[in-house]
Amino acid sequence: MDELEIDAVAEVELDDPVLVEGLPGVGHVGTLAVEHLLEELEGESTLVRRLYSREFPPQVSVEDGVSELTCAEIYAVEVPEGRDLLLLTGDHQAQSNAGHYTLTDAFLDIAEAFGATEVYALGGVPTGELIEEYAVVGAVNDESLLETLEDAGVEFREDEPAGGIVGVSGLLLGLGDRRGFEATCLMGETSGYLVDPKSARAVLEVLEDVLGFELEYESLDERADEMEEVIGKIQEMEQQQQMDVPTDDDLRYIG
Amino acid sequence: MDELEIDAVAEVELDDPVLVEGLPGVGHVGTLAVEHLLEELEGESTLVRRLYSREFPPQVSVEDGVSELTCAEIYAVEVPEGRDLLLLTGDHQAQSNAGHYTLTDAFLDIAEAFGATEVYALGGVPTGELIEEYAVVGAVNDESLLETLEDAGVEFREDEPAGGIVGVSGLLLGLGDRRGFEATCLMGETSGYLVDPKSARAVLEVLEDVLGFELEYESLDERADEMEEVIGKIQEMEQQQQMDVPTDDDLRYIG
Amino acid sequence: MDELEIDAVAEVELDDPVLVEGLPGVGHVGTLAVEHLLEELEGESTLVRRLYSREFPPQVSVEDGVSELTCAEIYAVEVPEGRDLLLLTGDHQAQSNAGHYTLTDAFLDIAEAFGATEVYALGGVPTGELIEEYAVVGAVNDESLLETLEDAGVEFREDEPAGGIVGVSGLLLGLGDRRGFEATCLMGETSGYLVDPKSARAVLEVLEDVLGFELEYESLDERADEMEEVIGKIQEMEQQQQMDVPTDDDLRYIG
Amino acid sequence: MDELEIDAVAEVELDDPVLVEGLPGVGHVGTLAVEHLLEELEGESTLVRRLYSREFPPQVSVEDGVSELTCAEIYAVEVPEGRDLLLLTGDHQAQSNAGHYTLTDAFLDIAEAFGATEVYALGGVPTGELIEEYAVVGAVNDESLLETLEDAGVEFREDEPAGGIVGVSGLLLGLGDRRGFEATCLMGETSGYLVDPKSARAVLEVLEDVLGFELEYESLDERADEMEEVIGKIQEMEQQQQMDVPTDDDLRYIG
Repeated sequence: MDELEIDAVAEVELDDPVLVEGLPGVGHVGTLAVEHLLEELEGESTLVRRLYSREFPPQVSVEDGVSELTCAEIYAVEVPEGRDLLLLTGDHQAQSNAGHYTLTDAFLDIAEAFGATEVYALGGVPTGELIEEYAVVGAVNDESLLETLEDAGVEFREDEPAGGIVGVSGLLLGLGDRRGFEATCLMGETSGYLVDPKSARAVLEVLEDVLGFELEYESLDERADEMEEVIGKIQEMEQQQQMDVPTDDDLRYIG
Repeated sequence: MDELEIDAVAEVELDDPVLVEGLPGVGHVGTLAVEHLLEELEGESTLVRRLYSREFPPQVSVEDGVSELTCAEIYAVEVPEGRDLLLLTGDHQAQSNAGHYTLTDAFLDIAEAFGATEVYALGGVPTGELIEEYAVVGAVNDESLLETLEDAGVEFREDEPAGGIVGVSGLLLGLGDRRGFEATCLMGETSGYLVDPKSARAVLEVLEDVLGFELEYESLDERADEMEEVIGKIQEMEQQQQMDVPTDDDLRYIG
Repeated sequence: MDELEIDAVAEVELDDPVLVEGLPGVGHVGTLAVEHLLEELEGESTLVRRLYSREFPPQVSVEDGVSELTCAEIYAVEVPEGRDLLLLTGDHQAQSNAGHYTLTDAFLDIAEAFGATEVYALGGVPTGELIEEYAVVGAVNDESLLETLEDAGVEFREDEPAGGIVGVSGLLLGLGDRRGFEATCLMGETSGYLVDPKSARAVLEVLEDVLGFELEYESLDERADEMEEVIGKIQEMEQQQQMDVPTDDDLRYIG
Repeated sequence: MDELEIDAVAEVELDDPVLVEGLPGVGHVGTLAVEHLLEELEGESTLVRRLYSREFPPQVSVEDGVSELTCAEIYAVEVPEGRDLLLLTGDHQAQSNAGHYTLTDAFLDIAEAFGATEVYALGGVPTGELIEEYAVVGAVNDESLLETLEDAGVEFREDEPAGGIVGVSGLLLGLGDRRGFEATCLMGETSGYLVDPKSARAVLEVLEDVLGFELEYESLDERADEMEEVIGKIQEMEQQQQMDVPTDDDLRYIG
């Protein structure tokens, strides 16, 4: 296994496509969003590249008894009513600091090969608590990109994200800037405790606005309902626990 | 020391051999299994390769005062009534993520050199508790391999192994697939707390079935009996401890 | 991204400049000091180099919604009444041991290119407690440098810094020595708990002495006042907490 | 800084010298022993090599205000009445697994350059408790070396050292074996809690026996007395603490 091995699975001609990245991160927001896009646009999607690397964790995933080596996958999507897309997804991020640089450069190489000059990195920004409203916080690598996104409802907040953006999402903006890409990071607010389909939906609604396509959200909403159930159960259990803890009064009765 | 140094200790002509891997892992199941094979097939076994690497931990083991540098060993076994074997064993795994890729590629290189196209990676899957029945869970890198193994009693479960297969065992399947090897991982169920001879036996019984040889199990059974004794003692000690812990009633008598 | 990428942003002719390093460390003393120099000498400063590296953490910082890839920056400062300066600043240190060596060699390469032969590495030495007097502890890579610094009030203590000097500051002295640079490390005493503007001021006063320029300290003093307020509040809260903790007498009343 | 930089400080003709290694380890036994040799044989010793590496921690030590970059040092010692020596000492070990291999190969290269074919790696083996008798446990890389060492009082125990020998000491035996060196590891028993001059003395007495020189031990004995005092004080403090802890009887009086 070289540092990088890229399998060309198929070739597709795209017209000025946009690279959309959804690797694992906070709340799995990016991954959920890109998986939903792949589901909704299945008929127009073709797997074009698989990327293997010694920078990925040394493991295979197993489904129905059959193994698959850790990789990142890129799908070409010829969207009828909107911008063409290159969808980047995978189960793992690089395992070393330098590895993030290596992989991000590889993703940008592939984007260049397909004629892309724009990137959307999707992720989540943790609030630390359950929320009702799902804002989308943004960052761009050039200020000329701010206005269109603000019009689409993206919030650019003064002190957020605190600590910047770490990993491939951040480097797509940073290295993208040095290589001539216009890159945006869209981060859906999320508690950070759960895989969050509502946050993924909020991010996708921005993409619909700026990239011109329309999506159905039935399956994501189903997952959101399941998540609400789980949250409800956890809250019940916590209240139950609180009722079982002895209070100061209870302690007075000892001795 | 280069990244890899391979000593050719001896040369043996094998006929379509099968690489069987038993590096350290959960319950030391793979290591026990391969050590047992080496014991039982001692007359037909020849050490052919020693593999040193800066990817192994920087240490020597010491036996009877004499040191040996960390390495992996490969034995060629000309099995009279079954498939020829290449047995891979060692005391340590690679110490870095990239190192696992490096070592697995080296093992597959050696397998290729001996004409092997099939691989069995042996290990354990932890149940988290002591068990009575010892199932063998499987994973393959091509679905054409499923049927024969199911006939041999291997279980392919929907959500197992959770988290996939990590390390050389997983990469033998993953990299093996990219290099034209048919690879199977056999994982004996085990508590995960102890070195488990019963789990090793369960895995070896599958190998007997698919590779055509027959083994005695006396020494492994002896080790299993020793393990039962140890478990018994630990359970006794735990019960003893529980009897010494003051109960709520005891606490009432203070003050 | 190569191991190192250096952007030549501008060219400035300097006369026998001094490299002054202020990368993040204990109490952020070095960073504060160099940031203050940049503020005070803004009219005479030009950003000349940006240094990117896979040795830096894989992230971007975000300000007003616009991202910036992790880097180190070097400013050329033509100081009218004192020595010319090369000011080195950044938000992060290297993320690996070998990375520190790589980056320090790069900083010294840039210093050489501008004709510098002297280096001042600025940092803090932690006392573990809040202090009133702010001494500056020193280390040099050649004993011929001791006298001038002692005259400027720098203290060279027998057992300090305990454990030596770690990171780029230490390597500027160590590698600088092997490459013909006269290097000094100035470490302002600081508690180690807070970003410390008073410690930064103490270090800058030494630099004023040895490099011949004069600085105002208004903004640093403002930050120092803010810090005093924060310390005051923390001390109040701690006293409040101590009054709420039940004493042995309180415990006597139970039962 | 390259992976390795070796400064040739001086050249000395030695006659079939023995490499003696004393890098930091358990109880600092090896370091103490080699430092004592350098003290006792000062008149016959010449610093011949300094070895710098990005594998060493990125730091400088500071003594009397002057910095020194982390390195390993090799002294050539022309011992009048015994074997010539190459003494290897330093303040730090390599910081990565692969780094240990790199450095050990470099030490063996230097040993070869001076015509050495024998190596003694000095260290400690931790007992986990304070001891009265100081045995020296041994390991060799060839069984032909056992007899002479047993005659000198070195103990070769069946299950020791448990876990083998890690780091440069172990690799001097392991890599040394592959490169034609006869190597021995002498490990003085020590608690593992303190720097142990008595353990260093026990190891040196074996060296006196096998290498033919004679040493005075006054300064080591002084350090041993200091250590006894420290141990005495710690034991006093522990007894004092035990007397202050309330017993069950004390607890009965509450309420």
